[in-house]
Amino acid sequence: MDNNYSDAIMTLRHSAAHLLAHAVKELYPETILTIGPATKEGFFYDLLPKQNFKEEDLVPIAERMQELAAKNIPLTHRQIPKEEARKLYANNPFKLELINDIPGDNVGLAEQGDFYDLCRGGHVAHTGLLKNFKLCTISGSYWRADRENQPLQRIAGVVFATADDLKAYEQRIEEAQKYDHRRLGKQLDMFSFHDEGPGFPFFHANGKTVVKILADDIRKELTKLDYQEIETPIMLNVELWKQSGHYDHYKENMYFSEIEKQQYAIRPMNCPGSILVYKERPRSYRELPLRLAEFGHVHRNELSGVLHGLFRVRAFTQDDGHIYCAPESIEDEVFNTIELVNRTFAKFGFHEVKIYLSTKPKNAMGSDELWQKATDALKHALERAHVPYEIQEGEGAFYGPKIEFHIKDSMGRTWQCGTVQVDFNQPERFDLSYVTSAGTKERPVMIHRAIYGSMERFFGVLLEHFKGNLPFWLAPVQMKVLTITDEQKPYAQELYTALRAHGYRVVMDESSDPLAGKIKTAQLERVPWMLVLGAKEVAQNTITLRYRDGKQEFGLSLDQLLAKAADYTKNYTI
Amino acid sequence: MDNNYSDAIMTLRHSAAHLLAHAVKELYPETILTIGPATKEGFFYDLLPKQNFKEEDLVPIAERMQELAAKNIPLTHRQIPKEEARKLYANNPFKLELINDIPGDNVGLAEQGDFYDLCRGGHVAHTGLLKNFKLCTISGSYWRADRENQPLQRIAGVVFATADDLKAYEQRIEEAQKYDHRRLGKQLDMFSFHDEGPGFPFFHANGKTVVKILADDIRKELTKLDYQEIETPIMLNVELWKQSGHYDHYKENMYFSEIEKQQYAIRPMNCPGSILVYKERPRSYRELPLRLAEFGHVHRNELSGVLHGLFRVRAFTQDDGHIYCAPESIEDEVFNTIELVNRTFAKFGFHEVKIYLSTKPKNAMGSDELWQKATDALKHALERAHVPYEIQEGEGAFYGPKIEFHIKDSMGRTWQCGTVQVDFNQPERFDLSYVTSAGTKERPVMIHRAIYGSMERFFGVLLEHFKGNLPFWLAPVQMKVLTITDEQKPYAQELYTALRAHGYRVVMDESSDPLAGKIKTAQLERVPWMLVLGAKEVAQNTITLRYRDGKQEFGLSLDQLLAKAADYTKNYTI
Repeated sequence: MDNNYSDAIMTLRHSAAHLLAHAVKELYPETILTIGPATKEGFFYDLLPKQNFKEEDLVPIAERMQELAAKNIPLTHRQIPKEEARKLYANNPFKLELINDIPGDNVGLAEQGDFYDLCRGGHVAHTGLLKNFKLCTISGSYWRADRENQPLQRIAGVVFATADDLKAYEQRIEEAQKYDHRRLGKQLDMFSFHDEGPGFPFFHANGKTVVKILADDIRKELTKLDYQEIETPIMLNVELWKQSGHYDHYKENMYFSEIEKQQYAIRPMNCPGSILVYKERPRSYRELPLRLAEFGHVHRNELSGVLHGLFRVRAFTQDDGHIYCAPESIEDEVFNTIELVNRTFAKFGFHEVKIYLSTKPKNAMGSDELWQKATDALKHALERAHVPYEIQEGEGAFYGPKIEFHIKDSMGRTWQCGTVQVDFNQPERFDLSYVTSAGTKERPVMIHRAIYGSMERFFGVLLEHFKGNLPFWLAPVQMKVLTITDEQKPYAQELYTALRAHGYRVVMDESSDPLAGKIKTAQLERVPWMLVLGAKEVAQNTITLRYRDGKQEFGLSLDQLLAKAADYTKNYTI
Repeated sequence: MDNNYSDAIMTLRHSAAHLLAHAVKELYPETILTIGPATKEGFFYDLLPKQNFKEEDLVPIAERMQELAAKNIPLTHRQIPKEEARKLYANNPFKLELINDIPGDNVGLAEQGDFYDLCRGGHVAHTGLLKNFKLCTISGSYWRADRENQPLQRIAGVVFATADDLKAYEQRIEEAQKYDHRRLGKQLDMFSFHDEGPGFPFFHANGKTVVKILADDIRKELTKLDYQEIETPIMLNVELWKQSGHYDHYKENMYFSEIEKQQYAIRPMNCPGSILVYKERPRSYRELPLRLAEFGHVHRNELSGVLHGLFRVRAFTQDDGHIYCAPESIEDEVFNTIELVNRTFAKFGFHEVKIYLSTKPKNAMGSDELWQKATDALKHALERAHVPYEIQEGEGAFYGPKIEFHIKDSMGRTWQCGTVQVDFNQPERFDLSYVTSAGTKERPVMIHRAIYGSMERFFGVLLEHFKGNLPFWLAPVQMKVLTITDEQKPYAQELYTALRAHGYRVVMDESSDPLAGKIKTAQLERVPWMLVLGAKEVAQNTITLRYRDGKQEFGLSLDQLLAKAADYTKNYTI
């Protein structure tokens, strides 16, 4: 089903590219066409215009496309001899090059009215089916995506089967811009970036509070699962990174420094540090599975051009974990991790989690038997957890099979977060061992796993997912006390003190604004609960609870409020 | 008083150096003497022996010193013409050089029996007063401490006025060795160091737990004092460090890296990051005092030769805080910090805190008026807090006055921990400002403050101070459940689960050792509370609580145990 749908949408997109080219040729006949494929997001056409297109030219082009769509022109496709095609494209060196590259004596030609285009085939029946499109961007490109070649212009768009789908898409885009985490991060005083360190986030108090809550919530789970939290250095001698293989395979992503004439790497990953702790003394089977967790701050070299808020940074903290165990324990450990991942994601309302299992690739290390055993263990764990998953055959890393977790956010976008990676390689490279109950030495397997992945990126995803309205348990300020007049100040102070004593993150609105103004401020700050206090509340010794969405509850006692707050916290109420 | 004592002990030490030289010349007449001063710890003599001394030679030398001491030989001192002195030292180029360097025509000569030594003077009356000495080390040195000069041998020792003082010293040394935090850190599986990163501590689960408790305890205080916790990058562009002045004055202590051809410094301090957060938007007087806290991980270049466990490392975390305020607020802020420091130190039983106030040095920046105001504010704050302090006249940094806190540990050693540093310089360099209630722009003062200082070093101090026996609230494992036979296992499991649910750090002894063995293990692990469960406890539904020192309490109910645990935690019971 999924695949058929996918074919249908790709056909739609590809046909829309023809429609775009058709309109362009009618309006600007001297434009030379190159290629116009469907993409994962929509479609584009790369063009060589006589005079460069500008943003505003998209309007008449889209209008002409609509006119052509309204005519319901049939789309046809036939094979013609290359000789005939070469004549059609005598003045188009790009198409001629394409014709030469196609094997055989014939090429495909798509036609709609008097417009034709070199084409492999696969189209909708008529242009009337293409009316739900939108032209999005005009940008620069190169022939065959090679900077050495002829510069071209790319017009890109999206197309949908129905008007509703297009409308939903437009709303999603609008929302995504409105709820861009960079914008929310600034509005809500969460974090900032500075020219003194592009890609290095500065967390302000609000953002740091959220990151701390996220970490502490994972810590609670780690305690339950008998993890040991460790902390290893940010910088280590390059010899270690040679032993781990990172220096050979990952060097260009790493930053370096020098200490006493020796090269040091600023860690891009936490595993070698964890391994040194494992190796610090001989390990017994009694200690396995040994679960070492680290909230490890890593640095990775990214080009400044690709940095993007908290989504793509040069330094971030991983909620990292390394499990050292016998191959027999893989299933249990992975099962526990899957449960942990699902339990964690559910707290944020991420109930739609796609899971992928990547299996043995061509140039794998380790015996077939070990791979079989490990892959089966992952499958069994997934089945025990009753979660659906897809197999990505041959897509595993060369050193072991992997499970990936992709979450879908409130705007329908998916994000890869958690991973569970079995690793046969590092235990070999570092000659890891443990003493069995029989007194023999065995090699443990290593499992790398992360739930959030990058805490920074996950925080950014959450900000957008919740559109800034972080749930009660996660909000940097959970409650704000608002008085109607100054007369309620002593009562407000009492309430404030009581709530702080219970560990809640409460602030007092100290301004002299009228209540409406105070409410507006608290709403802009996205405070989940406003505690409104007037003469009536003081007289009755109660609290009016106003939620972010305007709903109100009247006449709550302090005990009732505390019970509700405890309930919201415990149940991760969204 | 202190100074007189100090003079007396220096005289004693210097006289002991003569005694040492006297014994050496009697036993090895061909040894050439150079210098033999008193030091802060004791005394030494640098010698050029005919044949190098070995460790075991200290025994006969010390014995001869005792013999000379037993003879109560009077020490005399007189001035002689340089000519006469040059004859005495015709074969000693070192003493000849010293004679030449002394201004005037005469030099001092100390004599005891037939031994004489070039000397400024100041000795005890006779050698009998020097018998409470100990020779400690023999090591390499150079004439005038210059590697280009003649290599010498240094014999060092200590001397005390009474036998009791010497004994106390020997006990302190023995204890210090026994409770060396490096040794305890390994024994208790707290941390390790590895060749892949000398000076970079690796915290194991036990150590990380302690560091986390220390940080979280400070965090609770920060909440009460309205601090905002932030997190800023580990690496920042070198231009920032030029602006802050660190590049010019601190460069040799910093590590560097490179990103996209720009030089970056790995931060040795957190202040510039904090300043960028302050400057992120215009600040109003309403926001001041703005208190930004950061548990900031810093790196500082230290020679590998001086690294020493957690006391001298290349990377550590500061419990850092920066307060931006009007000069009028300095007193209140410093007062609150003094109270915080004292409250914090008291939790560990550090009741003896020495406080030093360092005032305006010669080449200070900032007006006399500002200095006067700031220094007065510090004095008033100290007086308000009713804590005694000493003034270190002219010892402040060029950019502001400072308060230092020195704690005395259980072995009588003092450690500088907390500091409060007023800073007029960084606000100038970064052109910091805030808008006053009148709408004008003013420059805030910056106060740097730390309580523990380096978390790593403080942890090391605590380990030694408590001799490994961390108090209940700080111990990585607070309680261990020990059963007498396997029959108590279900009861033990129930207790274990209940205590864990209350957030206590509990483990179960799963071994099949007899009770005595289990107790011994728990004692070696320094677990504060052992919960001993036998048939009687099961029958009565009680717990026997055994403390680390062997004291026991019988017949405790779970509620009683929980109440006691809560009490120990709340009161930081040692």
